[in-house]
Amino acid sequence: MFAYNQVRVFAPATIANVGCGFDVMGLALNEPGDEIVATRSVDPGIRITEITGDDGLLPTDPQKNTAGIGILQLWEELGLEGGLDIEIHKKMPMGSGLGSSAASAVGGVAVLNALLASPLSNDKLLPYALEGERVACGTPHADNAAACLYGGFVLVRSSDPVDVVPIQSPGDLCAAVLHPHIEILTEDTRRILRKNIPLSLAVRQWANVGGLVAGLLKSDYDLISRSLPDVVIEPIRGVLIPGFDAIKHNALESGALGCSISGSGPSIFALCKGAEKAESSGKAMQETLNRLELESDLYISPVNQNGPQVLERS
Amino acid sequence: MFAYNQVRVFAPATIANVGCGFDVMGLALNEPGDEIVATRSVDPGIRITEITGDDGLLPTDPQKNTAGIGILQLWEELGLEGGLDIEIHKKMPMGSGLGSSAASAVGGVAVLNALLASPLSNDKLLPYALEGERVACGTPHADNAAACLYGGFVLVRSSDPVDVVPIQSPGDLCAAVLHPHIEILTEDTRRILRKNIPLSLAVRQWANVGGLVAGLLKSDYDLISRSLPDVVIEPIRGVLIPGFDAIKHNALESGALGCSISGSGPSIFALCKGAEKAESSGKAMQETLNRLELESDLYISPVNQNGPQVLERS
Repeated sequence: MFAYNQVRVFAPATIANVGCGFDVMGLALNEPGDEIVATRSVDPGIRITEITGDDGLLPTDPQKNTAGIGILQLWEELGLEGGLDIEIHKKMPMGSGLGSSAASAVGGVAVLNALLASPLSNDKLLPYALEGERVACGTPHADNAAACLYGGFVLVRSSDPVDVVPIQSPGDLCAAVLHPHIEILTEDTRRILRKNIPLSLAVRQWANVGGLVAGLLKSDYDLISRSLPDVVIEPIRGVLIPGFDAIKHNALESGALGCSISGSGPSIFALCKGAEKAESSGKAMQETLNRLELESDLYISPVNQNGPQVLERS
Repeated sequence: MFAYNQVRVFAPATIANVGCGFDVMGLALNEPGDEIVATRSVDPGIRITEITGDDGLLPTDPQKNTAGIGILQLWEELGLEGGLDIEIHKKMPMGSGLGSSAASAVGGVAVLNALLASPLSNDKLLPYALEGERVACGTPHADNAAACLYGGFVLVRSSDPVDVVPIQSPGDLCAAVLHPHIEILTEDTRRILRKNIPLSLAVRQWANVGGLVAGLLKSDYDLISRSLPDVVIEPIRGVLIPGFDAIKHNALESGALGCSISGSGPSIFALCKGAEKAESSGKAMQETLNRLELESDLYISPVNQNGPQVLERS
């Protein structure tokens, strides 16, 4: 059943929500991301033998680890025999709003699938990755995991049952992603949201979601730009991120199509037409944060169309 | 400036909301619709000389008439000279949720444009048609008027400023439209809506709007079907229409992709793949109403891709 003895997989960071698409849209980046290595072993069972880049924060018990859970469940489901040693190399910031737990969860199921010469489709793999997400986040939000697994832009029409709609996006769509070195708790970012929202705002939001999907599928950059604004969540969450309004203002002034919070933050993304615009928008965003004497990382990436990638196998 | 002396135009009925797309989506039908005739006159000014099919309900003062307003304003804007005699032949039910006022308003500006050999684009005409809608409905809702004018499926991303996004739909998409002979007041249908809605429902709704737009653009009938449901408005408004739940149930049982209220009702539409399915779904819907001893009209129509049509000119 196994086609390889060892596989190293890259699983990309993701932007969730993507402006108006709160809880339903996501897109994958070329960088940063996680690397997961799986090596077959004669010792039965799944072991996490090494985790790097996590400052010692992640559990090595596979039953409690975002990457481990999915691998364990998939392993059982397929009735596999023997054992696996897993290394997790976190090469992206955690708690950043860039889908760190989704990258590990997806990387886990992807590396196991790759060991078997990839018999399982994305639709089959996603539920196992979401189980990992559930351990990390409490509720399974599929927007990060689906974008990470399918690559490209995705619409998660439903999380239960999972209904992921790939949305083709124009080839030169590029993201600038600014990760401020501050910590905000996902718990807080959920708690400050209102349980009820005005119908009038909801209508504006779903008009924008429809416009964004149409803009992406028609490669209409103006429509993408007009449709990106999030009128429901961003006005509330934006206050948790120092300098957010100025950063957004400067990104748009630099020619970005739109700018909003990635996932529940604190990372901020700008979508741009072409890498050059993404570079200049990203620079403008980072300089705004520099003036507040806050450190940050900046990533520039086109929309990753591949999802997880096998880096090495033997 | 005038290319013709007399023009007769057909302007189609429309389905607004279209399931999940409350206040933002609409589609045009091949029938029913209004016919508007405009004849040049040496007597200066705009006159409405005849209205048929309205049971005497519509005002003949062009300043107060849905069709008249747009014609008057466009006439002034273009600095036209001489006069026009206008006939309005309502060949569709009023107060039915099928965009009767929008058909008149669009028919008005379309007939004037046709007299001039159509120099004005839809984008230019729409604001004048919306002025007519405003007189009829109080607030200018662009979903009926935009669908009527552009034809096809439209997403009204914004009403102010107007931002209409044509959404190409698969060629064999067909509607069955049932118009029960009951009266519900638009005022009531607005008043019973809640000002605030749960965020969780709003998220489901905008996931569906995104899915519906993607389904139409990708000609993915299953996705269209999964995405049509309106989880916000229909559960509230449905109770105003006798037998709605049974009618919807029977439409879906007959193979309709989805079924919901057209505009603010009382008309009910079912979208289907192909005319045959639309016929059988429509029949099932009408029979349900027959059993309640309520009379109704039934229309079967593909999505009208043309908008207003010139029937005669001289």
